[in-house]
Amino acid sequence: MSLIVCKFGGTSVASPERIQMVAKKLIAKKQAGHDVVAVVSAMGKTTDELVGLAAALNDNPPAREMDRLLSTGEQVSMSLLAMAIEARGYKAMSFTGRQAGIETDKIHNKAKIVMVHSERVRDALERGAIAVVAGFQGVDAEGDITTLGRGGSDTTAVAVAHGLNADVCEIYSDVDGVYTADPRICPRAKKLDVINYDDMLELSGSGAGVLQMRAVEFARKYHVVIHSRSAFSDAEGTYVKEETDMMEEAVITGIAHDTSEVKVTIRGVPDMSGVAAKLFSALAGNQVSVDMIIQNVSEDGITDISFTCPGADKKRACETVERILPDINARECVVDEDIAKVSLVGTGMKSSPGIAAKAFQTLGENNINILAISTSPIRLSVVVDGAQTAQAVRCLHTAFGLDSDSVFEETQLSAEEIAAKMNKGR
Amino acid sequence: MSLIVCKFGGTSVASPERIQMVAKKLIAKKQAGHDVVAVVSAMGKTTDELVGLAAALNDNPPAREMDRLLSTGEQVSMSLLAMAIEARGYKAMSFTGRQAGIETDKIHNKAKIVMVHSERVRDALERGAIAVVAGFQGVDAEGDITTLGRGGSDTTAVAVAHGLNADVCEIYSDVDGVYTADPRICPRAKKLDVINYDDMLELSGSGAGVLQMRAVEFARKYHVVIHSRSAFSDAEGTYVKEETDMMEEAVITGIAHDTSEVKVTIRGVPDMSGVAAKLFSALAGNQVSVDMIIQNVSEDGITDISFTCPGADKKRACETVERILPDINARECVVDEDIAKVSLVGTGMKSSPGIAAKAFQTLGENNINILAISTSPIRLSVVVDGAQTAQAVRCLHTAFGLDSDSVFEETQLSAEEIAAKMNKGR
Repeated sequence: MSLIVCKFGGTSVASPERIQMVAKKLIAKKQAGHDVVAVVSAMGKTTDELVGLAAALNDNPPAREMDRLLSTGEQVSMSLLAMAIEARGYKAMSFTGRQAGIETDKIHNKAKIVMVHSERVRDALERGAIAVVAGFQGVDAEGDITTLGRGGSDTTAVAVAHGLNADVCEIYSDVDGVYTADPRICPRAKKLDVINYDDMLELSGSGAGVLQMRAVEFARKYHVVIHSRSAFSDAEGTYVKEETDMMEEAVITGIAHDTSEVKVTIRGVPDMSGVAAKLFSALAGNQVSVDMIIQNVSEDGITDISFTCPGADKKRACETVERILPDINARECVVDEDIAKVSLVGTGMKSSPGIAAKAFQTLGENNINILAISTSPIRLSVVVDGAQTAQAVRCLHTAFGLDSDSVFEETQLSAEEIAAKMNKGR
Repeated sequence: MSLIVCKFGGTSVASPERIQMVAKKLIAKKQAGHDVVAVVSAMGKTTDELVGLAAALNDNPPAREMDRLLSTGEQVSMSLLAMAIEARGYKAMSFTGRQAGIETDKIHNKAKIVMVHSERVRDALERGAIAVVAGFQGVDAEGDITTLGRGGSDTTAVAVAHGLNADVCEIYSDVDGVYTADPRICPRAKKLDVINYDDMLELSGSGAGVLQMRAVEFARKYHVVIHSRSAFSDAEGTYVKEETDMMEEAVITGIAHDTSEVKVTIRGVPDMSGVAAKLFSALAGNQVSVDMIIQNVSEDGITDISFTCPGADKKRACETVERILPDINARECVVDEDIAKVSLVGTGMKSSPGIAAKAFQTLGENNINILAISTSPIRLSVVVDGAQTAQAVRCLHTAFGLDSDSVFEETQLSAEEIAAKMNKGR
């Protein structure tokens, strides 16, 4: 008998029919003798609809009110799921973030969990109930509702699992685990049975949408075992945990891609000291998260500087650059949205020299131009033209020996559809 | 400078545009120097939608979960209204039932308020904010969310007004006050400037939908002055308070009608002692609220017994009667849904004999058959055929000198539309 925390995202609870499926899944676990806690997101598009209502009333809605508004979405799904479980003759009890003891700091819209008080949930379990916890929300020290921002519900699930010392935190989604690459663009991608926290963090941070980075960070910090699996099948997914007991570790664990960044180029910049400092401190001051920086070779003392940043920061980035253009004597600012970052990730990289050389050679042989490069001890990222995303992922996947013998059959999606999927919700 | 509590129902906050109107109204009061508290219902049809979702998952949803589900509706409208006020440059702060200190008993779905702790709301007012309180909800001693049932938001408003010792509790709706009769069926109805608690209670209890009976009861108990007025104009409405300072009180204050009751007739009942007791104790045991009872003259030791009860109790009433038919040796059970109760209400009735005689004579002259009669010291109710509802109200309105010189111009509605309007939400 185990204690299992199961997190279901918005797609899994989007309709009464889907909520029934989730209820059945939870009851099956209960029948198998486990203690069961569910953590749920808001139904389908609820959050978007609430954001739309707020936008109709206030261009810049106060953060406190926004949290109070958005937190209702999870309260609806938590109650409905509890009702569905009770309808099948099992005890259920729902808990808001407050009642589940999710205590956060006061930063509305992106609060961080500071403590989990699990007494009430534990009490419900001891009385034989399936506990249903609203994801994405907590309460600050003053008793005000907060929300956790993107990845919030995954983080709630991991935090609840930690608080209850659960055996595993199962995160259900529409994919059946963590793959060596996105199977939608790389048909020979393999599902991983297990992956360590570091590799998972780098993959999540590089665009793999299956698990939210914050949740993985939390899990690593508190040694919570995550099981990423499909809401629509009973197949085992991928375990994320401390040590992978594989005898021989692959050098590269997986390849992620991210089409959500944009490249900003400042043309005609005088190549003199202090210019870059001025530019990037202005960007930092304006909350633009600069990822990679590329400075071209100077000609006649004039050069181009490019950087990449999240698409969400584009407007702020352009405003900042336009403002200081006269200041640094530069000519113009151009934005390229059609780029992709492709990242090789693997703890094994640390002890394997030559990864970068092999990657560059592979891309070169496939006529894929590298626009920028960045690295960490266990990651190598390159920026390529957006149109070459799938090709880049596939040739690297083959070159580093990740290809499966079987071919993934799902219809291939367009780059836009992938981008939309990768960047979805919380 | 006064402290004003303003309650807005679901229709008044049904869309972002309407919420903007409410925000403007509140700000105008603030600009006039008043302290302002708003109490809001859920937007438009939200509650019905949530009830529908619950019904899709559970035929008999657990009361605790139902409360948690339904309470989200008011949380959405409270946040949106606060945002709309802030967008216009005024401070606003929203409060759930819990935060507004609405402490209730543990009876989920129809909780009663036991205490109001107004410190947080008062604090917000002192800091210059317009406070926005979610109606219809509270929290029990264990911290679980409760809802107040029908009339809940009106009751919240009166309770908040009592807790803050407000000067007035304004209840906004789509009608501009309390009328001597429903102007939709009685075009010569007059708006009352003022009405006392007792008369208002009898009118509300007899089908006048403008104010919820529970709220009026609460107001009477704690001497809260209610101002019932239109959400769509600035005209004064009707004040409900202890004493009406009128020099000469009218005998009849108003006429209410109620088409929501049904008449159940048990035919062929042996006229012997104990039968009625058996019948009505069975009905009471099955939570049927019997209103009026009519026993026909016996012929050959066989009689008919009829009673009226709320339409919502119809199914339970019929089941109960069918079950005991063999027991009391009766023939059959027939239900008539097309009836109306018409009630004359007036504190002045106490000191004016002959009201009943005059009413019966008036109805007789108009060929309106009386199916049942009931009275209280300040009310006389008759049941008539549903098709004669408007005619009955009008002829009594004229006979008791209530007719206005001007004629109400709104299009007349059908009996069904009126019934739907009279029985609407919370």
